Parts: sequence; C-alpha cells; structure tokens
Amino acid sequence: MPLPPALPDGGLRVVALGGLGEVGRNMTVLETQGRLLVIDCGVLFPEDHHPGVDLILPDLEYLEDRIDRVEAIVLTHGHEDHIGAVPYLLRMKADIPLIGSQLTLALIEAKLREHRIKPYTLGVKEGQREKLGVFDLEFVAVNHSIPDALAVMVRTKAGSVLHTGDFKMDQLPLDGRLTDLRAFARLGEEGVDLFLTDSTNAEVPGFTTPERDIAPAIDTVFRGARRRVIVACFSSHVHRVQQVLDAAARNGRKVAMVGRSMVRNMGIAAELGYLYVPDGVLVDVKKLDDLPDDQVVLVCTGSQGEPMAALSRMANRDHRIDVGEGDTVLLASSLIPGNENAVYRVINGLMVLGATVVHKGNAKVHVSGHASAGELLYCYNIVKPKHVMPVHGEWRHLVANADLAVKTGVPRENVLVTMNGGVVDLVKGRARLVGEVPIGFIYVDGSSVGETTEALLKDRRILRDEGFITCIAVIDRATGKIAAGPEITARGFAEDQAVFDQVIPKVEQALAEATGNGVRDEHQLQQVMRRTIGGWVGGKLRRRPMIIPVVIEA
Amino acid sequence: MPLPPALPDGGLRVVALGGLGEVGRNMTVLETQGRLLVIDCGVLFPEDHHPGVDLILPDLEYLEDRIDRVEAIVLTHGHEDHIGAVPYLLRMKADIPLIGSQLTLALIEAKLREHRIKPYTLGVKEGQREKLGVFDLEFVAVNHSIPDALAVMVRTKAGSVLHTGDFKMDQLPLDGRLTDLRAFARLGEEGVDLFLTDSTNAEVPGFTTPERDIAPAIDTVFRGARRRVIVACFSSHVHRVQQVLDAAARNGRKVAMVGRSMVRNMGIAAELGYLYVPDGVLVDVKKLDDLPDDQVVLVCTGSQGEPMAALSRMANRDHRIDVGEGDTVLLASSLIPGNENAVYRVINGLMVLGATVVHKGNAKVHVSGHASAGELLYCYNIVKPKHVMPVHGEWRHLVANADLAVKTGVPRENVLVTMNGGVVDLVKGRARLVGEVPIGFIYVDGSSVGETTEALLKDRRILRDEGFITCIAVIDRATGKIAAGPEITARGFAEDQAVFDQVIPKVEQALAEATGNGVRDEHQLQQVMRRTIGGWVGGKLRRRPMIIPVVIEA
Repeated sequence: MPLPPALPDGGLRVVALGGLGEVGRNMTVLETQGRLLVIDCGVLFPEDHHPGVDLILPDLEYLEDRIDRVEAIVLTHGHEDHIGAVPYLLRMKADIPLIGSQLTLALIEAKLREHRIKPYTLGVKEGQREKLGVFDLEFVAVNHSIPDALAVMVRTKAGSVLHTGDFKMDQLPLDGRLTDLRAFARLGEEGVDLFLTDSTNAEVPGFTTPERDIAPAIDTVFRGARRRVIVACFSSHVHRVQQVLDAAARNGRKVAMVGRSMVRNMGIAAELGYLYVPDGVLVDVKKLDDLPDDQVVLVCTGSQGEPMAALSRMANRDHRIDVGEGDTVLLASSLIPGNENAVYRVINGLMVLGATVVHKGNAKVHVSGHASAGELLYCYNIVKPKHVMPVHGEWRHLVANADLAVKTGVPRENVLVTMNGGVVDLVKGRARLVGEVPIGFIYVDGSSVGETTEALLKDRRILRDEGFITCIAVIDRATGKIAAGPEITARGFAEDQAVFDQVIPKVEQALAEATGNGVRDEHQLQQVMRRTIGGWVGGKLRRRPMIIPVVIEA
Repeated sequence: MPLPPALPDGGLRVVALGGLGEVGRNMTVLETQGRLLVIDCGVLFPEDHHPGVDLILPDLEYLEDRIDRVEAIVLTHGHEDHIGAVPYLLRMKADIPLIGSQLTLALIEAKLREHRIKPYTLGVKEGQREKLGVFDLEFVAVNHSIPDALAVMVRTKAGSVLHTGDFKMDQLPLDGRLTDLRAFARLGEEGVDLFLTDSTNAEVPGFTTPERDIAPAIDTVFRGARRRVIVACFSSHVHRVQQVLDAAARNGRKVAMVGRSMVRNMGIAAELGYLYVPDGVLVDVKKLDDLPDDQVVLVCTGSQGEPMAALSRMANRDHRIDVGEGDTVLLASSLIPGNENAVYRVINGLMVLGATVVHKGNAKVHVSGHASAGELLYCYNIVKPKHVMPVHGEWRHLVANADLAVKTGVPRENVLVTMNGGVVDLVKGRARLVGEVPIGFIYVDGSSVGETTEALLKDRRILRDEGFITCIAVIDRATGKIAAGPEITARGFAEDQAVFDQVIPKVEQALAEATGNGVRDEHQLQQVMRRTIGGWVGGKLRRRPMIIPVVIEA
C-alpha cells in the first residue's frame, strides 16, 4: 500500500494506530477540517516474542506533528486496552481533554494520579450530545464487561461515524443498562456513513450468554465449598464481583478484596454506585482470621496466571493466604489465548495443594464481554450503515466481522478491512482505503518508553534460546601482542566453564597468528575471535549462542 | 514423601519416570524379582520456561544402576511422546529389546536409523502373549490417533498390571480396529490388580466423536475450495491423512506430501498397509506445476505453529509453495495448550495472504485421540480393577481420572494419584504409594544431553527479559592501577551505547577509589563494578539486567 494522498477538502480521515491485527492497544484517530479526534488510547500486553517488555503502546508517533490539532480523547470504557496508554499520550500534551462516562473517568484519573498527571476531563452520559470544534459527538449506552461503557456517534461536515467501542448485547444485564438499540436505530435512520464495530467475537456463532446465567454455577460453587472460596477475576469486572457479593450474601459468607488494583477499582465502583455492597458483606482482609473458613470469600486478581498476581503467588505458597485442602478456587474469567500454560500451571499448583478448582473449562462460570456473530448481525440490520470498518481484533476476527456485514447486505467494496495504519477517507459520502501509514510498536520497558527496539528484542530472543559467550583479549599497546586473555565468560550457554578449555587455545593461536602478521585493527581481531568460537560451537556443539568478542588495548 | 523402602520379596513396583504431572515424556518402569520392564519412553516438548531447549527426556538416571536388569521396552504406539526418548535410553545399553506392533517398530526403527542405532526388536500383535523372563505379556488392540496401538497386560507372580497406553474407544473406527473391550472384560474377570489408564481427556465430559464424523466437514472444504487445498496435520496421523486421500479421490484432486517427516511416515504407513492410497491420487510435490490449482491437495506439517515447519514458512512467504488468494488451508488437528499464539499467528498470516483458513475453531475438522470421561467410565466398569493409577496428564487430568474410577466403585484408597517418581508397590494383592524418588528433567539442547541445567535456564530467562551488561577493566599487574577500561558491552539491554556514558565515570571512580585503597582482589573489584552498575540501572532505569563484571590483569 502506498502512503496516503492529502485528505481532500471536506473529507474525513480514519486511521487506527492500534487494535487492528491484534487484541489490545485500541486507538482510532479521526481527522477533518484540520482537527483530530482520538477514540480510545489503550495498551497491548506483550507475548513471548516481545521478551521483557512490560507494555506495548499504539504508535503515538503519528500524532507527534499534529498533537496541537487534537481536539479531545474519547474513552469508550475503562479497560486497560482502551485507556492504558493515555498517560503516555498526555506526556506529549497534557491539556488534551478526556471525554468519558463517570466510571471511565474515575478509573483513568486514578491511573493518571500514579503518573502524577491531573487531566482535563469532560464527563458525559448516554444520550448526551457535545460539540467539540468540528466534531459533534453523541454518546450511546452499550453493555460490556465493565459498567458505563459508551458507543460514540461522531457527526462532521464530511459525514457521520458510529464507533461501538467494546460491546455486547446482553438482553438481561445485571444493572438493567442495555446496549441502546433504539438509539442505534435512530442513528441508522439518520444515516451512518461509517460504522466501526468490535470484531473480538465475530468468529463465535450465535449469541453471548447473559451475565446473570452464570449465577447458578457460582451458587453451586458457594454451596459446595467446605472451607474458603477464593474467586479470581479481572479487577475491572464490576458485574462479576457483584455476582460474587450477591452469592456471598445468599450463602452467609463475608467477602474480602485482595490485591491493590482489585481494592482500588472496587472502591471506586462502590463509591460511585456501580457496585452494590450488601450490608455487612465486605470485610477487611486483615479481619479474616476472626472468621471460620466456611464463612470466607476472597476476591483477587491473577485469573490469567500472571506470575506476580495474588493467585499465582498462592499456588506457589508465596502469599499469606495459604491455600489448602478443602478450599475452593473459582476462576470466574476468560482464558486469553497465549495464557493457557500459565493458567494451567496455577490450576495444577492449587490442586496439588489440595484445593478444588472451578473454571470455565469445567463449569459455566464465565461469559464473554463481546458481541458474538448473531449480535453483530442484529447491529448491521438495525444500523444499515453505508460503510463498515471492523475494529478490535486479529486479522481473522476482522475478516469474520466483515463477512457478517456483507451477509446483511453491505456491499463488499464498502467493507474496509485493514491493519493498523490503513487510511480510510470518507469523501463525498464514499469511504475508501486510500493508503497506509507505517505503524510500529512502542515498547514500555522499565522506565523507558520507545527505547526498546526490534533489534534489541531479536537479541533477547537469541539470548533466551542460546545464551552468550564473551571472549576478551588484552593487546599490549606498545607491542601489539596479546598481553592477557583470551578469557571467556558465558551465561545461559554451559554450566561448566571447563567446556571452554577446548576452544581457548584455538582462539589464542588464531590471535597470535593474526597479531604476528601485524594485524592491529580491533574489528579484524574481533572477527578472528568470533569465527574461531563460532566454528567450534556450531560444528561441535550444534549451538548458536551470541558471541561477543572484545579486544582492549592496555 | 520419603524415599521408598526396599521392595518386599514377591512384590511388584511401579514408578513413572515421566508423564505424570505433564503431557509428554511418558515412561513407566515395572520391577519384580529383580527384573525391570519399561513401558514407553517418550519425549516432552519444552514450554516457554525452558527457553532454547529442544526436547525434554524422562529421568533416565533412575535406570542408570539397574540398566542391566531391564528385560525389555514395550512401546504401546508410535507417537513421539511414547517413543522419542528411546535413542537416549539405548545409548545406556544398546541391546535392550524393543517390543511393539509392526507400525510402532517401523517408526522407531526409522528414528533410530537417524541416530545410527540398529535395535533388537520383537514384533507383536493384539492377542499375542509373550513371556519375557518374569514378565508375562499380553497385548490388546486399542484405538488411537495412530494405527496399531496396543494396551499391555503384564502378569507377574506379584500380580497383574494392565496399561492402556494412549487410547480412545471410537466405535466406528476407519480401519475397523476397535479397542478390544472383550479382551478388557476377559482380563478383568481374570483379575487386574493395577490398572494404568490414560488421563488426557478425563476432564472432558461425554464421548470423543468418531474420526469418520469429520469426513463431511473435510468434504465441504474440498468442494468449496477454489484453488489449492493445503492440509496441515500431525505427520503420524495416518487416519487423518487417509481421510484427506479419500476426500481428494472423491473430489478429483491429487495429493502431494510436503515435509520430511510427513513423507517418511506416510511412506512407512502405505508400505505396511496402514494407509490405503487410492489409485493415482498421490503425486510428487515436484509435479504439482503440471496440475491446475483446483486439482491440488498438499498435506504438510506445522499444525501447531512450529516456526520451522512447512505451514509457518508458507505463512511467512518463506516456502516455495506460495499461498495466495483462493487457496484454502485446513488445519485438521488439535490445538495443544500453549501453542495458541503460534497457531493464530500462522492463521492470521495465511489469511493476510488471501487464503481461507478452516480449523477446529470454525469447523468440525478434528477429533481427539483420547478417551473422554464417558469412555473411561466404560473401561472401569468392564475391567473392575482392584487398584487404579491414572497416567498421562497434568495433575488436573490425573485427579479427574481418579474421580471417575472412584465413581465406578473403586475405593478411594485404591486409586493412586501421584506425580513422576511416586513409588507404587503391589504387595500381597494390595497396591500403595510407599515413597518417592526424585525425578528431574533431562534437557536435549543442540548435541548436548543432560548438560543444560535449571541454573542455566534461569540465566536464559533473565537474559530473555532483561539482557546483560558486561563491564571490563584491565588492571596493571605491576602497579595495581586501572590500565584500560572500564569498557561496557551490552546486548538485549539498550540499543544506544551512549546510555552508558552516565555510568562509566561512576565505575571508573569507584574502581580508582578501591585500587587507590590497595584492593587487588579480583572478586572484590568485580563486586565494586557490579554494585555501581546495579545501583544505576535499578534505581534510574528500573531494570535488572544480568551484570557481568570482568577484571583482567595485564
């Protein structure tokens, strides 16, 4: 794909800086009349081919030379993959207003406090309409696995864009807050030029099960538990925790929250009225010793097997909650692809300690937060958009979502499937993919942002698989002869240093030959060392460690 | 658990050296009257916490001082997790006879040829009875995802052990070879003291779908494919490849095998009559250019996303088969937990190239090779064993299998759930867990076997996540002062060498101070370097790379 042409006057440009071709770091930029609107700004959690990386950000570089033209950031809901990168975006310009619902803003404000940023915010509610410069925004209630999620309709002179955010269409939601299909219908009748829809579950046939349908399974767990019940779930899943509180109240148990993010988020949710805490059900974790085990429920994080979270540490006996015989652990959560080994490691560990473990593999204790294929069909038929751009998902999800849109009658050429950086221009009522801007990964690694490069990660992957060998020789500055060494240090390669007794004489000889021939150039001598060691480990040991020859003059 | 006592006279001991608490490296050792019988000897494929390891072997060390007492190795079937470690066991003693069915022996012989080992073998068939010293063996047909699998009944003076191997109970198998429940019934009536059963699918309720039930889904794929069909599956799954050949014949397509192991194994299976090749269906991959795309089927490996296998290379455009628009890729395989990211990476890659990808997530194109809970219940009720020892599986699988045995009436105390190394003694008709021998991992890493240690892997994990910093200083032998350096080399830590400009003066100063105070000891000086660099990276960069200080005298 070529770079895009300039946006024609009166046109609207849509570019995703993250979230297309991956699950996470969702971020979409709308541009018209020289002004920009950002929808969501989330993080992506790294996989095994990003070793050592803490977080991956959307490619904020795209905004660098246009940051002054950003009107606002709309946050559709409070999940990390939609708000997690906001602190990094605000480092570029601190006063861009954040627009979102009450709970979403409370969660991002708590996060920004940790980064010592006090943002400008504009709280909005479903049904509310706000004009921000050239963007006329209307917010629509959607149902998701966190309360207070919003879709956003963006009206511009160039046309209108409806972005669902993450959503599903639970018809019997716990809090009664439905995805507002009446609003979708009204907006559809008015005319939606471009419909951006959540693709996460587009491959899943049928309909996502209502959240309340897992209540019986949770009750069964509570009734059958002999000692403590330990529930692990996402620290933002207010409805899931609500179900746990309700089940605890029904079964005469008290609930304690464990873990910083769980305590913080549920505190916010309860304070704002999104979480209803039955009288006297909540206790401080420090008071648990006063209660008999069969009256205790713990709610903690770690449902994805994260090694530092409470549940993993319990499985490793590295937590003050000592799980044992008769305890029941309930993983009331999804199993995100890629986390299987870690999660099953935790499950096996807890079972070896004697606990019973209930999870989505053996009981109906989790439902997804995303619309399945059947729900997406409803959406397309109600909105009848002119164009569709699937967002949020790997390529396979985007393609599946596109196929659904086509099935409902959207012409194939009006369904725009693209990776991050694909540039969609809406001009004179017609949306087309006009080019591509390069989109990279920005890695957060310790306190560094954007300094960890692909080359560095490639080095780490080699080090991970093969370790390294450093070979050091000191050359006498005066004579050009070897003054000390060669000395070999290796890590991740061989335990027994004696293995190098075979190669050190070879390196010594090769160096003596080279220096004897008058070679003084450091790089040439390093090449001699690298070749000698490389030939030996490759040929004899069938290994390919990183080899770092060092020549020092002294 | 304590070490086990000596085996009482007239007793039978059972110890698993692999396969309990993990999926892979299955190996069980039976011992009675001073003689040993090994059942299976497989490999385990490493996960992400074993970086760089090629294979993991059962702990063969247990056999080291008793290798001369091993009567034979029974191989229940030809899968890698049951035969893959045989070459390493035969390195300890080359003339231990291998006992197995025709196909199993053909596969292990092909593998051993690569290791330049010619084994002693004894081919057996279902129904056959063979006396090997104190072990009286009877072989029973079982159905699995590879033909010619066997269970084995071991009669000894101390009692009888029935080991299922891997199995399921397809009631309509493609080759008509059923798991022989009439034999299970007869052996049960005779009396089975200890029943070792495959736990892999014990958590899965109901019954495993018959292999032939996926034929319609495969036919649908073939009929709908516009250009080539590319099927990926395990290179040992003869029945699956049979279905592909049959579907190709029905749909007027020719089949080419791609990849060394696929070509080799299917050649063996066809030659021995386990794979029926319809006339003229098979073509050489080199002849494909002569055929129109819509008459072509390719069968290849790589269904688990293995980076070097044919399918991954096709997805990366690194294979001479150039997948494109209109091609259909069929992953007719399981998705082994832990491989999700790799597999979805391949699926997305193929889809980006324009291929349609059909897999178990979106069509009924795979069934498991293992008995589900319902089938295991049948087994327990037919055999009515006195004792049960669940084998093959993670802890959660073993526990689920144990629960099934208990449900059918086996007393809980007679169901022996243990990890690798748990020692089960059958004495006077009573089997009990009497102790534990330590079982470690033997890693194959390049050409080294058993030299890669846990400490080494820990180093690799640090290198993977954080990289390393080497700091070198040359000390003048005569004066004890710094003669050159400190010089820093780092990999996987920072791209820009300039970052060290901040810390090199600090190290220099610290070293000058120490040497000025007369410190000459290499380790003390190294400590000074390590502390200075460690404080800087930890405090300022919030990172914890491996730090390797080197002091050289010259």
